[in-house]
Amino acid sequence: MKLKGQHLLSVKDVSLELINDLFKVAESMRPYATRQKVTRVLEGAVLGNMFFEPSTRTRVSFGCAFNLLGGEVRETTGLSNSALAKGESLYDTAQVLSGYSDIIAMRHPEAGSVAEFAHGSRVPVINGGDGPNEHPTQALLDLFTIHQELASQDRGIQDLSLTLLGDLKHGRTVHSLCQLLGLYQGLKIQLISPEALAMPTKYVDILTNAGHQVEIGNTLEQGLPQANVIYQTRIQEERFSSQEEANRYRGYFRLNKQIYSQHCQPNAVIMHPLPRDSRNDANELDNDLNTEPGLAIFRQTDNGVLVRMALFACILGVENQLHQYEREVNWFVGLDD
Amino acid sequence: MKLKGQHLLSVKDVSLELINDLFKVAESMRPYATRQKVTRVLEGAVLGNMFFEPSTRTRVSFGCAFNLLGGEVRETTGLSNSALAKGESLYDTAQVLSGYSDIIAMRHPEAGSVAEFAHGSRVPVINGGDGPNEHPTQALLDLFTIHQELASQDRGIQDLSLTLLGDLKHGRTVHSLCQLLGLYQGLKIQLISPEALAMPTKYVDILTNAGHQVEIGNTLEQGLPQANVIYQTRIQEERFSSQEEANRYRGYFRLNKQIYSQHCQPNAVIMHPLPRDSRNDANELDNDLNTEPGLAIFRQTDNGVLVRMALFACILGVENQLHQYEREVNWFVGLDD
Amino acid sequence: MKLKGQHLLSVKDVSLELINDLFKVAESMRPYATRQKVTRVLEGAVLGNMFFEPSTRTRVSFGCAFNLLGGEVRETTGLSNSALAKGESLYDTAQVLSGYSDIIAMRHPEAGSVAEFAHGSRVPVINGGDGPNEHPTQALLDLFTIHQELASQDRGIQDLSLTLLGDLKHGRTVHSLCQLLGLYQGLKIQLISPEALAMPTKYVDILTNAGHQVEIGNTLEQGLPQANVIYQTRIQEERFSSQEEANRYRGYFRLNKQIYSQHCQPNAVIMHPLPRDSRNDANELDNDLNTEPGLAIFRQTDNGVLVRMALFACILGVENQLHQYEREVNWFVGLDD
Repeated sequence: MKLKGQHLLSVKDVSLELINDLFKVAESMRPYATRQKVTRVLEGAVLGNMFFEPSTRTRVSFGCAFNLLGGEVRETTGLSNSALAKGESLYDTAQVLSGYSDIIAMRHPEAGSVAEFAHGSRVPVINGGDGPNEHPTQALLDLFTIHQELASQDRGIQDLSLTLLGDLKHGRTVHSLCQLLGLYQGLKIQLISPEALAMPTKYVDILTNAGHQVEIGNTLEQGLPQANVIYQTRIQEERFSSQEEANRYRGYFRLNKQIYSQHCQPNAVIMHPLPRDSRNDANELDNDLNTEPGLAIFRQTDNGVLVRMALFACILGVENQLHQYEREVNWFVGLDD
Repeated sequence: MKLKGQHLLSVKDVSLELINDLFKVAESMRPYATRQKVTRVLEGAVLGNMFFEPSTRTRVSFGCAFNLLGGEVRETTGLSNSALAKGESLYDTAQVLSGYSDIIAMRHPEAGSVAEFAHGSRVPVINGGDGPNEHPTQALLDLFTIHQELASQDRGIQDLSLTLLGDLKHGRTVHSLCQLLGLYQGLKIQLISPEALAMPTKYVDILTNAGHQVEIGNTLEQGLPQANVIYQTRIQEERFSSQEEANRYRGYFRLNKQIYSQHCQPNAVIMHPLPRDSRNDANELDNDLNTEPGLAIFRQTDNGVLVRMALFACILGVENQLHQYEREVNWFVGLDD
Repeated sequence: MKLKGQHLLSVKDVSLELINDLFKVAESMRPYATRQKVTRVLEGAVLGNMFFEPSTRTRVSFGCAFNLLGGEVRETTGLSNSALAKGESLYDTAQVLSGYSDIIAMRHPEAGSVAEFAHGSRVPVINGGDGPNEHPTQALLDLFTIHQELASQDRGIQDLSLTLLGDLKHGRTVHSLCQLLGLYQGLKIQLISPEALAMPTKYVDILTNAGHQVEIGNTLEQGLPQANVIYQTRIQEERFSSQEEANRYRGYFRLNKQIYSQHCQPNAVIMHPLPRDSRNDANELDNDLNTEPGLAIFRQTDNGVLVRMALFACILGVENQLHQYEREVNWFVGLDD
């Protein structure tokens, strides 16, 4: 498998063959992630979980995935007290930290920093987000979720009709997702955003060049009826070009139960990169959707564990060895109702 | 056992039967906590140790307890960079984080927040302190310590004569302890505090309704001679209603060797929720008590590991399986004198 | 072995016999640190990795070393929210935390604090740096590196010609290294620094009393030709006694490829306690040395893991038991070129 002994820095490094192989491994991780079984295949291995920009969700997801394979996690959060802050180069930091770990997951606020770090590392590095630039594991878990959700409806990726909704100009996750979708052919994709927050031409071109049927709009209703998957992103007021435009769109891209029932296909899948803002005045997914079976936002974060387990297993070359180090689970899982 | 698959959010959820069962399990944890044996019963399980309000003592105690059962710990400290700080609801945070863990211990600065979090969690949640509200594992370890200390004097809980001393108005730990003591009958309890910092009526009522013999006073000497257990809490100067009252009581509730020798029973047990302030002007336990056998404050924190191990084991339903996953300890324990 | 059940607080506690024994154990750790084998000898043991002053490098090195022996790590970073900050004594903090751990590594910003902490601890404490005072594991890994580098040139410690270069007045690491070198006899040692930043007499005396041949100078070239090992430390501009002196020495102690080729022995070993400042105006090792085989700065940090593994193993008395708990490594190590 191509991932063995490699960095994962960008979705641009990812081929369709790699995705197909990775997603098969991710699916095979489910019994371990759902604690039907325990595996200790990576016992004695150390993950350097280096979050030079703080994060709870992604950091814990990486750490949990490594623990579920039996490995140990050494963690760093924040930049302010690090050697980096004292003028050390990313090259030196990488040389040092890679002597302490078998693999490194790294987040850093500056674009390109993780690639620069990887250049100095003696072990594989996974980009956990480098500022506005890339967050490849998020893109992979998003695509994996689309596959899984369609499969649960007895559909395949060729049946996808995807609506990307919200701030398509600044959203790092939708840009990376477009890159990955460019590896497929003949999908239906709707790009719905306020005019000033439209998907950059670069990414629209990737989609049209791949032969997808792309529709662009700026009213919510244009994008909902034909979609079997809706991927919503947050709109931050300060992103608008003018107060007038902000006023025009305020609260308009908020999906709630009433709009969902009226405009969407039954059980249309709803995704979101999270966090969604749950305060009243926020332009996000409404809490009244929480009971909808189509709301996939927490299956999406659960899938992040599967995808990250698969990445660790493939990069360290143990994806076929998990069953050799497994035992049954003996503890109670979940909540007693 | 009633704890299996359940949250532990409040001492109000705790019955006498549950306490008796839990304390038996806690006692059975001693060989593992004192490293006579190693158990790996929770190998492969992940604790989400989520301290949205920083804490060293309680956080490390929870983490250590889980490690001693063989589980792994993923940890978060502080609120400022979390999704919660960006407007995410406790429900969403809980949905996401419970996909990464088998059980969660959580501290949060706001009252009620841990219960709200538990509502969104898909795995059991233990309240590690929600601001001024509850800290049930502290109350349980305090009660466990009272049992243990009396037992070491060949006494039972029915022999308890307990003096609660200091700021009884604001002390979360003494309030929770009163709740638990309300499950017993016929004990002797002295409540000694400055007038302005007296135990709220609500908790006095719990004690008297349970049939305890309750005495209330505001001079140190009133509470010491008859006590076999003294539980002291910190008085912060700013808590007094006036400077006059602060002046009147300054340094007065400071227990030291001289007062202990003069007024207390031989080897009367001294407890404190810690930290005690060791600076010279602080109204706390004096360091000259450190050599007294009755000073139980570090046995008390040690007991916290036993009680938290027992809670994890009971909630995850493995309390009878530890010996199946055990091995002998091969390393040196403690300090060579 | 003398380390069993002992604290390691200061290089002053270290004898030549202990060093020789420790370094043999450190060398035996290499197969585990390089992941040729996995050992679980400390399975079930807990390291309290207490960094009351933040640190990435040293903290992760300690944690990684303990993980590689199979132990678990509970970690604390920063002082601001701790009980210590609320007025708790180091004695109390130590009493409490030592109930959660089998061994403690501790860093604290104040000189003497780790020894004070150790006084209250019920388990062995390793000083991970107490402000300007001591950092014994750094001194040991520096000395171990000198041994290793000389050995790779078929030389022994008796062949050492060492140049200490830079700020020798304030550098904690070179002071501690001098203490350890005082255990040997008849070495050649050059002390090269700006006049105002010369090695304190106390440490020069240790070297001369041991019978070493000591040379003192303040020009770079005086120290380079005769050295087979060069240990450089950072000069901070604000350390100079006057702006004039700062101007005189600015950039002068910067070692780069050109100076190295012109003045040093072929493959002379270059060491540095790191971090080196990689910004252009910094008086540090130049990046153009990165490809020189003699640059040992990352072998030095790698050696830190070996030395810390050896310390943990010796203090906990398991240095001869690792092979009883080992298995083969099944995962891919390093990067695929």
